[in-house]
Amino acid sequence: MRFRTLAWKGNYLELIDQTLLPGKTVYLKCRSAEDVWKAIRTMKVRGAPAIGVTAAFGVYLGVMRSRARDIRQFRTEFAKTAKYIASARPTARNLFSAVEVMKEAAASFSGNTVEQFKKALLKKALEFAREDEALCRAMGRHGARLLKSGDCVLTHCNAGALATAGMGTALSVIYSARQAGKKIEMIATETRPFLQGARLTAWELKENGVPVTLICDNMVGSVMRTGRIKRVIVGADRIAANGDTANKIGTYQVAELARIHKIPFYVAAPSTTFDFSLKTGKEIPIEVRDGSEVYAAFSRPTAPKGVRIFNPAFDVTPGSLITAIITEKGVFRPPYQKSLTRFRRGG
Amino acid sequence: MRFRTLAWKGNYLELIDQTLLPGKTVYLKCRSAEDVWKAIRTMKVRGAPAIGVTAAFGVYLGVMRSRARDIRQFRTEFAKTAKYIASARPTARNLFSAVEVMKEAAASFSGNTVEQFKKALLKKALEFAREDEALCRAMGRHGARLLKSGDCVLTHCNAGALATAGMGTALSVIYSARQAGKKIEMIATETRPFLQGARLTAWELKENGVPVTLICDNMVGSVMRTGRIKRVIVGADRIAANGDTANKIGTYQVAELARIHKIPFYVAAPSTTFDFSLKTGKEIPIEVRDGSEVYAAFSRPTAPKGVRIFNPAFDVTPGSLITAIITEKGVFRPPYQKSLTRFRRGG
Repeated sequence: MRFRTLAWKGNYLELIDQTLLPGKTVYLKCRSAEDVWKAIRTMKVRGAPAIGVTAAFGVYLGVMRSRARDIRQFRTEFAKTAKYIASARPTARNLFSAVEVMKEAAASFSGNTVEQFKKALLKKALEFAREDEALCRAMGRHGARLLKSGDCVLTHCNAGALATAGMGTALSVIYSARQAGKKIEMIATETRPFLQGARLTAWELKENGVPVTLICDNMVGSVMRTGRIKRVIVGADRIAANGDTANKIGTYQVAELARIHKIPFYVAAPSTTFDFSLKTGKEIPIEVRDGSEVYAAFSRPTAPKGVRIFNPAFDVTPGSLITAIITEKGVFRPPYQKSLTRFRRGG
Repeated sequence: MRFRTLAWKGNYLELIDQTLLPGKTVYLKCRSAEDVWKAIRTMKVRGAPAIGVTAAFGVYLGVMRSRARDIRQFRTEFAKTAKYIASARPTARNLFSAVEVMKEAAASFSGNTVEQFKKALLKKALEFAREDEALCRAMGRHGARLLKSGDCVLTHCNAGALATAGMGTALSVIYSARQAGKKIEMIATETRPFLQGARLTAWELKENGVPVTLICDNMVGSVMRTGRIKRVIVGADRIAANGDTANKIGTYQVAELARIHKIPFYVAAPSTTFDFSLKTGKEIPIEVRDGSEVYAAFSRPTAPKGVRIFNPAFDVTPGSLITAIITEKGVFRPPYQKSLTRFRRGG
């Protein structure tokens, strides 16, 4: 990778400010839980796995300077911080998984001093970041086998290196396939309203030398109809037990259009994205964000003042539209109700 | 209507500058064929019927100040102007129909002086504009019967008053239904890259008191899935003999998504939009516009510098996805190969 999405710098977390890409490459310093919460909420960091890793460091940052007199008081502060960080956004499973991982580390801490406790938490956050890198590599390896040399692959939003601590989820598959010598060309959808495809995916693919063509979200059907697109790969924010997948708004219609045009539709996501407590995608809460992102995301208003705007940040793609789910443990196929159960058991 | 899209002002054509909406309401004065050509090319005026009416005046403006010594010389100048105006954009049928209408008026002119010739051309252009208003009213009347009170209707791009000399094509159906006392609520898609939905449709519906909610192009499938949208109505730039319809990029995928969600999909277009010389939509030339519209439509770049961009301005929706075509002569249903033939014969 030609850039670093996030990095722990001894006593603060450094994040590339994704709201300023592709124009400026600015690194943010997060020194507190509040800094992290704000970075997640305002999408300076985004992408489910990157949010997860950032949240893990956020929980640590919230108690890093704690002056708790004893472990008990420290635990109270920790619990408060953990709850606070988990409240930054509602949809991404990884945010909650990351907070859970930190809570488990806290629960199993058996040392004597607050300083030891802090060290244990930092160790866990660092481990969590390294694990994310490993997950990306593994997903890339498994997914790359699904691609043929010469394929033109469409991706929606950004599920790349910018969305993780590693090579990405969907895009790690692309990077791996290319490392294995396959010629892969990409089509990136713009991804309104936040333009993650135009600003982030097109940027990171270009940085990493992958040929990419940018299209608007309403051109997907039309380009698919020409026969140019051979596969679709996207990431995921949360996956229910039946394979129903919450991902960036627009994913659902890309999946429907892929089915109509007989194009395989893949989801690439680490196991931390699965939420087996949800039977179907209907139970996934969908964040509805402020209309201002649609109204004036581009420094000047592009809609009439006061117009009503509906701005859901995600949608749910039924598992039935997903050809395969690429995880760090291999590639899973429908029926997901069954195949993911094996996965859950460690298969 | 609370505004005037275009108006003939004695010796120039006044156009509302649609590239400045919704922020500013500025009226442009077109005093020459060049002014008109530029206004059409740069989409200061857009919408197939409005382009047609503008083109008719453009042909007249090109010869209005002619100093031709005789009718023969005048005809040569006229032919040159007509060809020039027709070259402004490649897809809209109405542009060519309008130029044809002016050419027919010229061909049938039997007077003696150049001044009489000029008057005959102006008369024809004014007539053409009035006819467009009448077409809009008739389409509105026929189409309104297809809507039920309480319907929430999605429209893509702008096929409203801003796209015609009258009440619009698709939106005239909405205005008529409301005049008939039906409660109709609208959903407007943003319509990248030029944002005609956000800038124009949301603006004109709001100006005219129609409740409207703006969504991004990638939210269509997701909102359809909730069951909220009861019908889709769009305009058309050209319709082939089998009903295949060229319209703003994105129309095709809206039509596919409407079919999947069992939502009636209507096209509203005057007979000038039909091109019976084309058997199917495959023969319709699709304008591919410059990537800069995608790259920096919003005053600052939203994509990395130098990224490849594909920017088709239109797509073709197969007639098989169109529930009905609303024209000034009534509502036509599939198979269009058959029903439109009756239409062609004046049925």
